[in-house]
Amino acid sequence: MNPRGSVLALSGGIGGAKLALGLQGVVGPGRLTVVVNTGDDFEHLGLAISPDVDTTLYTLAGLANRELGWGRETESWHFMEELERLGGESWFRLGDKDLAVHVERTRRLAAGEPLSEIVADFARRLGLATQVLPMTDDRVRTIVETAAGTLSFQRYFVQHRCEPRVTAIRYAGAEQAQLPQAVLRELDRPDLAAVVICPSNPYLSIEPILAIPGWRAWLRSCRAPVIAVSPLIGGEAVKGPTAKIMRELGLEVSPLTIARRYAGIIGGFVLDQVDAALAPRFEAPVQVASTLMRTLEDKERLAREVLDFAEFILTARSHTQG
Amino acid sequence: MNPRGSVLALSGGIGGAKLALGLQGVVGPGRLTVVVNTGDDFEHLGLAISPDVDTTLYTLAGLANRELGWGRETESWHFMEELERLGGESWFRLGDKDLAVHVERTRRLAAGEPLSEIVADFARRLGLATQVLPMTDDRVRTIVETAAGTLSFQRYFVQHRCEPRVTAIRYAGAEQAQLPQAVLRELDRPDLAAVVICPSNPYLSIEPILAIPGWRAWLRSCRAPVIAVSPLIGGEAVKGPTAKIMRELGLEVSPLTIARRYAGIIGGFVLDQVDAALAPRFEAPVQVASTLMRTLEDKERLAREVLDFAEFILTARSHTQG
Repeated sequence: MNPRGSVLALSGGIGGAKLALGLQGVVGPGRLTVVVNTGDDFEHLGLAISPDVDTTLYTLAGLANRELGWGRETESWHFMEELERLGGESWFRLGDKDLAVHVERTRRLAAGEPLSEIVADFARRLGLATQVLPMTDDRVRTIVETAAGTLSFQRYFVQHRCEPRVTAIRYAGAEQAQLPQAVLRELDRPDLAAVVICPSNPYLSIEPILAIPGWRAWLRSCRAPVIAVSPLIGGEAVKGPTAKIMRELGLEVSPLTIARRYAGIIGGFVLDQVDAALAPRFEAPVQVASTLMRTLEDKERLAREVLDFAEFILTARSHTQG
Repeated sequence: MNPRGSVLALSGGIGGAKLALGLQGVVGPGRLTVVVNTGDDFEHLGLAISPDVDTTLYTLAGLANRELGWGRETESWHFMEELERLGGESWFRLGDKDLAVHVERTRRLAAGEPLSEIVADFARRLGLATQVLPMTDDRVRTIVETAAGTLSFQRYFVQHRCEPRVTAIRYAGAEQAQLPQAVLRELDRPDLAAVVICPSNPYLSIEPILAIPGWRAWLRSCRAPVIAVSPLIGGEAVKGPTAKIMRELGLEVSPLTIARRYAGIIGGFVLDQVDAALAPRFEAPVQVASTLMRTLEDKERLAREVLDFAEFILTARSHTQG
């Protein structure tokens, strides 16, 4: 990869944040921007909660709870215990440290500050050289239509533990949403070397981003290669309901289905080595890699492969054009 | 005292809550109602905070931090540490457990529930047989005019540590405020045996209550004796700025000044033994007692003396009338 280029990553929560952490390790300081899904955002206990944004911030700052897969490491739960005693809702667990992010975000939003500025400021205060930005400052809400009725994302994901059968997913408010100024600035960077679609759930994490007018058009015309990394390994997601939802929506549980979903947008697809046999069936150029990210080394190795792949595609394009 | 009668106490924070705890120990379950000042309430970090109400709840439930004089015992501060890291305001300290009360109150207020119902419910959930009620469901704010400018109560009290010279105190919104239904029900109780004005700061804790239309008129016509307990011992308050404020307002720092302030309302005044020599100068009947409350025993002994005094006054009145 071009060590001087900047990189833009689109991501959801856990899985995506892992690759973002890998990218952070290999892209120079100030050259990585992670744009995060806010379709999962919701209001709870009067607080504005942005689960994917926070998972990304915590993961990049080395503060994430790896055991739980959400929230903070070395967290305490005194607030939650007291809230239960007072009869408050406790299905969505908020740790004492985690709570500071929600209270301060809610306060600043109420004071009229855009979410993108608040999140960018939080990232700086957590010591990150990576820019973390929400996909929009406007309200977009992922709504899951299920056999058990219409559910807001967190009700589906946390309260119902993804159990109800999904019949449709929509992104309420996406059509009216706009890209934040800080995102537009990144899209304009002349040194942009790659756009990475992280191995997040396509339906719950990436599509809410793509549903905002402007993203698809920009990705189609983007000079830098757009590379998607498969969230499926051997027909299953590492974590989360991607495969289950694909089955319920009547889709073939295959990286091919996902690549087709991103058709016209992506310039390359990174496939897990387990699925290497599928490679010839892709329309876009394919890179086979080990996409399972357990250690930081795994994450940085995959990040390097993704960026090398992007550079390869860019070079191939310039040869074709020349 | 009549062990079957009910008791209504008017109180501010720490000092008043001590006597309320004493009363709770000697009045039968379900027969004590504490009406608490909300002139100190404020919005902070987007949360609705009621310091005197919470101090009363925590004190009566045995959860108060006696060392700090506010907040919860065995408290943790993880929220606050994280908030500071994120650049949030930290001059008003909120513990992790304490925070649950503020978040849940704020949520329920935003859902349209009156403060009195929320507080009464919190009291029940904390296991109290005592009814705790705010003085009003409406917004009343104590404003302190000082040599350093106009200050909201908490800015004066916490941020400026009562240092600026006070020139005037007003209770914004009090004239438009109404008594909560639950308070009105208590005022109507035929078994009401005594009304106790706790040894709270008269200017910052009791006057905001009395400034609400209805309170003075009701106290003047109340059949049960109204007894005020002196917040001054030998010219000083046990805690807080009562004496300092009296000096700054050009008032004589004496229980006599306070009794005069309550003239027409009170049927009796409880004076500390240190000030016994002043007794003959009071218009209202005086009871001399040890008003310093260190132990629970002190508090319950004083409570008993106050209630016996009320019963004595009631008996004397009925003899006069007969």
